[in-house]
Parts: sequence; structure tokens; C-alpha cells
Amino acid sequence: REGEGVDRQAAEEFIRLYHAENPAAGSGRPRVRDVLAEIDRTGMYTHTPGELAFGARVAWRNSSRCIGRLYWRSLRIRDRRHVDTADGIVDECVEHLRVAGNRGRIRPTITVFAPDRPGKPAARIRNDQLIRYAGHRQPDGSVVGDPVNAELTDRARALGWQPSGGRFEVLPLLIDVKGVTELRTVPEEVVMEVPITHPHYPWFADLGLRWHAVPAISNMCLEIGGLCYPTAPFNGWYMGTEIGARNLADADRYDQLPLIARRLGMDTSNDRTLWRDHALVELNVAVLHSYAEAGVTMTDHHTEARRFMTHLEKEERSGRVCPADWSWIVPPLSGALTPVFHRYYDDVRLTPAFAHHTPVAAPTGDRT
Amino acid sequence: REGEGVDRQAAEEFIRLYHAENPAAGSGRPRVRDVLAEIDRTGMYTHTPGELAFGARVAWRNSSRCIGRLYWRSLRIRDRRHVDTADGIVDECVEHLRVAGNRGRIRPTITVFAPDRPGKPAARIRNDQLIRYAGHRQPDGSVVGDPVNAELTDRARALGWQPSGGRFEVLPLLIDVKGVTELRTVPEEVVMEVPITHPHYPWFADLGLRWHAVPAISNMCLEIGGLCYPTAPFNGWYMGTEIGARNLADADRYDQLPLIARRLGMDTSNDRTLWRDHALVELNVAVLHSYAEAGVTMTDHHTEARRFMTHLEKEERSGRVCPADWSWIVPPLSGALTPVFHRYYDDVRLTPAFAHHTPVAAPTGDRT
Ligand code: HEM
Ligand code: HEM
Repeated sequence: REGEGVDRQAAEEFIRLYHAENPAAGSGRPRVRDVLAEIDRTGMYTHTPGELAFGARVAWRNSSRCIGRLYWRSLRIRDRRHVDTADGIVDECVEHLRVAGNRGRIRPTITVFAPDRPGKPAARIRNDQLIRYAGHRQPDGSVVGDPVNAELTDRARALGWQPSGGRFEVLPLLIDVKGVTELRTVPEEVVMEVPITHPHYPWFADLGLRWHAVPAISNMCLEIGGLCYPTAPFNGWYMGTEIGARNLADADRYDQLPLIARRLGMDTSNDRTLWRDHALVELNVAVLHSYAEAGVTMTDHHTEARRFMTHLEKEERSGRVCPADWSWIVPPLSGALTPVFHRYYDDVRLTPAFAHHTPVAAPTGDRT
Repeated sequence: REGEGVDRQAAEEFIRLYHAENPAAGSGRPRVRDVLAEIDRTGMYTHTPGELAFGARVAWRNSSRCIGRLYWRSLRIRDRRHVDTADGIVDECVEHLRVAGNRGRIRPTITVFAPDRPGKPAARIRNDQLIRYAGHRQPDGSVVGDPVNAELTDRARALGWQPSGGRFEVLPLLIDVKGVTELRTVPEEVVMEVPITHPHYPWFADLGLRWHAVPAISNMCLEIGGLCYPTAPFNGWYMGTEIGARNLADADRYDQLPLIARRLGMDTSNDRTLWRDHALVELNVAVLHSYAEAGVTMTDHHTEARRFMTHLEKEERSGRVCPADWSWIVPPLSGALTPVFHRYYDDVRLTPAFAHHTPVAAPTGDRT
């Protein structure tokens, strides 16, 4: 899109939508005229704070992969469009983690930085979440930490980062500003973490597992009315399975199931004992238990699936299509036990939207 | 399609496919000529036994919802196209259950009855599987047995069936022949069943659960080269989750999880204890254990998912697309633990195929 100017039709459609859903904002006609004139003159236009907030909330509402959309209206918007330096961005991300983390009572929040302008791409955060654990490659080819971040870890090292090499070491932020990648540390005091323990098995604590409290996606573009905000980190709270059935469980992530199954005394030589399924349930019990103990907001997949059904009904009653991607909405644990499993969805792409604009290279067919 | 005659193009494409994949059958050209001439003359044509067997196997290969396709070449074909009376069909279904059941060492098998002819629809089995448990409606609105079959049970009663009212009572077959629905009993001695027990919990046997050994779908049309075989029951063996994570677990089927969780001593008042997920794993352990004890073929979802990955590779190496439907291929239990979860698939519709030609009425959006 660089140098091309904002798409007039996309701008007009968004402004119309904003006025249609916000009758208090009055008729959209004069605003459409102004916006189009501004685009014709400058290739660009500027959202009002009201438009920005509405756009961000609707982008969430349109996220077909997100099961957590019932509360889309409650998203808090931090308008930081004037911030465009690495230091400014990091400071605001730190503040984002603090206010969104809210000492454990997590608040869905988005911080919006400067948008791309014709010929002037905005800054970008390369980390896919504000908090990510490093994956340290070992001489034998194995990885200590989170293997999914091994490449990002390599890049941080190449830029001068000196890791201590731990399993749960928070990566610095890598921020592209004007063609240069800058490295900035996230101060420890805003990285809220939860040590994982189990309500019945004291040995669980010895596994030394932990996870962070705030999942804040930082590499998706927020698209509103033809504008692109490439740096707009947003967070909800975790659903337990994201940690218990993916991050700590996947064979190419922390891969803890064989260890847990052995500690549970299960026969891991035979698939039919369902040792993996068993260990998976215990790990998820531990994750939910630990976040509750720590006073950090987290939902289980049964509750969140029920909420999503409520959301679907509400959207239907509002006369809207609710786009949803079955393979992302159905939880990775006990899919058929949740009501979201037993139906199909429309999966249309609507805007405003969150989008992956610089797709990470992945093997064909990979679900990323 | 009634009265319209067979689609020439579909016939030609199939004959070409048959000859392309079976070089030993020689050039397809003369056969294509003969088939098209026959269609022009009579509106119909007849498959050779070789074409029928190939067509049935490829219909399996093309079943995008089926995880069990690695062994598609080994499907046994019972050619009973000359059979078209209710008695004849039932006798052959009984024989099907006997040879496919094979005293527990289950053999994937299909029995093909007469096809539809222009203006002369063939017989049809209304039961969706050869063996189905009745769902007896009670005065208070509840159902004893399998609720999914309540409607079929009503119909059987209306036709004079006198049930004993048990939880696992095998339904008679309802067969439509020339506009009349006929009722026929499946003799007990071919209904192989497995009582469900648990390797560690003796009380599990007291739940009185059981399931049948041979899953034989009987209401899908086999479509080959423009012809439609509406009565062509086929079976594989069960994957444990079909019984343990759906038939006995779903809240609108046998709904056993609350009972099992209570017997396990779990707190069922709180979703976050994951009592459902826990009970689900134990039920699936019990199902796999019981079938093994009874000497009845059954696979677990880990093994079957790995086999499916092998199948995908083989199909790719053969230069073929392998159509697959993510939401059916990924098992309903511990989805993310199986390799089939972590990728996407092409979901094209290829023929030959198995198809639901008389869709059962279902609420919009239902996954049926
Ligand atoms: C409030 C609590 C929330 C919960 C429980 C929740 C839950 C989830 C879950 C479970 C996923 C799938 C993640 C995965 O499988 O990797 C997801 C994806 C997603 N969510 Fe939410 N979410 C919440 C809030 C939000 C908010 C506030 C936004 C944006 C404003 C959002 C936007 C998205 C998007 C864009 C995706 C897809 C990410 C991708 O494509 O990688 N969610 N959400
Ligand atoms: C050999 C062992 C087999 C296994 C383990 C297996 C496994 C499965 C499973 C788990 C499903 C999904 C069922 C559901 O969720 O309701 C399925 C569906 C299906 N399978 Fe197989 N299968 C096997 C053999 C066969 C055979 C022999 C055929 C045909 C010749 C076949 C054709 C199909 C079809 C058409 C469906 C979709 C059914 C529908 O749309 O309702 N399968 N299979």
C-alpha cells in the first residue's frame, strides 16, 4: 500500500458503519464528504477518537478466531497515535501491561500507535506478543525455553542481547523504526507471572513451570476504514487451554506431557492407556488452579464456550453475522464437550479487522 | 434425478479414472463408447464388478470426513446388485454383519444393493446404521436409550414394533421398498456387543454400559459415475472416541459424564475442576480397554491420527489431492495432541463419493 494512499471505498464504508451503529454521532454524510476530500488532497485521513475506539472494538468483534468476544464493547482504548519512537513505544507498552494487568484483575485493552502513511510506514513490533519466553538453541540442536521463539531469540542476540539462558526468560522487544531494528528490555516489575502448581500433586511445583498473566498480541495490524495501524498491541485474559493444552503441552513447545505422565505413574509405552490425554487434563487443572491462587483472571474452556454461545445469540438478535472459524473456536481440549463444537459458523472476513500483514514463513498447510 | 437418466459426463469421467488407475484394464476408449451408447439407449448403464469395486474403494478414499482411510484399498466388496426385496436385503445385511464382524477381527466391508434406475428408485434403509439402539420416549419427556434414535423408534412402533424398553435395545431395520416401509428384525446372534468395564475402577461395570462392535453406516448413497446406489451399507472398525467421546458422552446422547465424575469423587459444581474432561478420559480408557478385552478391533485416536498422516503422505506421493474436513478429522478428545490438528486440508468434493441424499431435518447450522 506504500505511497498509494488510502482506499476511498474502505474509508467511506467504515464511516457509514460508525454512524449507523452510533446514532448519537448524527448523520455520516458531512463526515464522509470531509474524509474523502482529505484523502483526495493528502492520500490520508485521521480517525476521530470515537471512530478509533469503535473501529478497534469492531475489529475484535470481527475476529473470527476469537472465542472471547462476548465483551467486545468493553475494550479499553489507549490512543497513542502521536507516539512513534522506539522509546516512546516501549514506555507505552510497559504502561499497557501495567494498566491491563491491573494487579491480576485483567482488563481487555488496546494501545494504538501511529498508523502507516502513504510512503511512510509506521513503526512495528516484531515480537508476536509483548511478553514471550526466549528459546535458547543448544549445541545439540535442542532448545531451552520456548522453541517457537528460537528465531526471535537468535535475532535479539544478533542485535546484542545477552540472555542468561533460562527456561522462562522474557525476551526484549524488537522494534522496527525507520528501517532500523531497535532492542528494548521490558522491565521485570511489569511482567506478572504465575508459578504452576497442582491442587492435589505437590510434586507438580518441582516441574518449575510458570507462565505470564497478560497475553498481549503485538504483531497484528489493526485495519480500520482503509487505514492500517501496524502497532496496536491488544490483550484479553487467558483461557486455560492456551497455556495448558498448547504452550506447555505441544511437542514442539514445552512438551511437558511425557514428564507429567511419568510422574503420575502412567504407562507411557502404550497409546491406548491415554496417558497423554490424562496428563493433559492434570496440566490444565494445574494451570486453572494456579491462576486462581495467584488472583489472576483466567477462564476455563467450558465457561468461555458458553459465553461465546451467548455472544452468537446477541449478535444474531442485533441482525449481524458473527464470523467464526470452527477450527480456532473449538478448544484444543475435549472439543466435543463444549457447545461450540456442535454447529457450524459463517466465516466471512469483515472489517475493521486484526490482520497478519507480514506472514511468517511456515511450511505449506501449517495451521498458524 | 428420477426419470432423467444417468449423467453422461459423470459416467465418462469415472470410466476414464478407472482405466487411468487400472492400467491392466487396458484402454478405456471402447468402454466409454459402449457406456455412452447404453445411456443414450436406456438412460442407464451397468458397472462391471471391477468398476464397482474400484468405485466403492475410491468413494472411501474421497470421504473427506473419514480419518480411517489409510487402508482404502483393502475394502471388501459384496456385490448384491441383484437383491431388491426387503427380505433379501435383510438377509444380506445379516450376512454382512457376520463376515465383517469376523468374530471380532473386523474387516472393512461394503454390500452394494440395486442402484436407482430412471423412474425406478431402488430400496432404501432408513436406519442410519445397521445396528442402532432404540430411544424410548417416557411420559415425562425423557428418553430411555439413545435419544438420537427416538424418532426412528417412534416410526418403528407405529409400524407395529413391540419394544421391551431397554437402554441398549437394537432397533429393527426399516426398509423402504416400492413406497412401502417394511420392518425386519436383526437376529441377536449377529449383534456383537462389548460390555464396558474399566481397568482400575470395578464400579464402572455397574453403570451397565455397552456398545456394538461393528459401525455400519446404512443411509448414505454410494455415487459412482453418475449412478446412485442408495443401499450400500459399509463398515470399518470403531475409533474409541466415537463411542467414548460422543455416543456415551454427549449431553444429548447417553450423557454419562456427570455420573462418572460423581463416582470418581469429583466436585461437579465447578467447571474449573475440569470434572467433565477428567471423566471423559476415564470413559475413553474404559472403552478402549473393554474392546481389547473382548478381542474386538478398535483404534485409539493417537494411532488413527498417525495413520492418517501416513495416508496423506502416500496420497501426495501418488500425485492426488486428499480431501479432508478439519472439523471431522480432528478427534473430539484432546484435539491438539494429535498431529492432524496442526495443519489445514483441501476440502474438495470428489466422486465417487458417499453422500447424504435425503438430508434429515436439522436446526440451521447444526453439525450433522
Ligand atoms: C477477554 C478475553 C479473551 C479471551 C478469553 C480470548 C480468547 C482467545 C483464544 C482462546 C484465541 C485463540 C488463540 C490461539 O489458539 O492461539 C483467541 C484468538 C484471537 N483473539 Fe481473543 N480473547 C480475548 C480477548 C481478545 C481481545 C481483547 C482481542 C482484540 C481486541 C482479541 C482478538 C483476538 C484475535 C485477533 C485472535 C486471533 C489471533 C491470531 O490470528 O493469531 N481477543 N482469543
Ligand atoms: C477402517 C476403519 C475406519 C475408521 C477407524 C474410520 C473412522 C472414521 C471416523 C472417526 C469418522 C467420523 C465419524 C463421526 O464423527 O461421526 C468417519 C467418518 C466417515 N467414514 Fe470412516 N472409518 C473407517 C472405515 C471407513 C470405511 C470402510 C468407509 C467406507 C467404505 C468409511 C467412510 C466414512 C464416511 C463416508 C464418513 C463420514 C460419515 C458421515 O458423513 O456421517 N470409513 N470414519
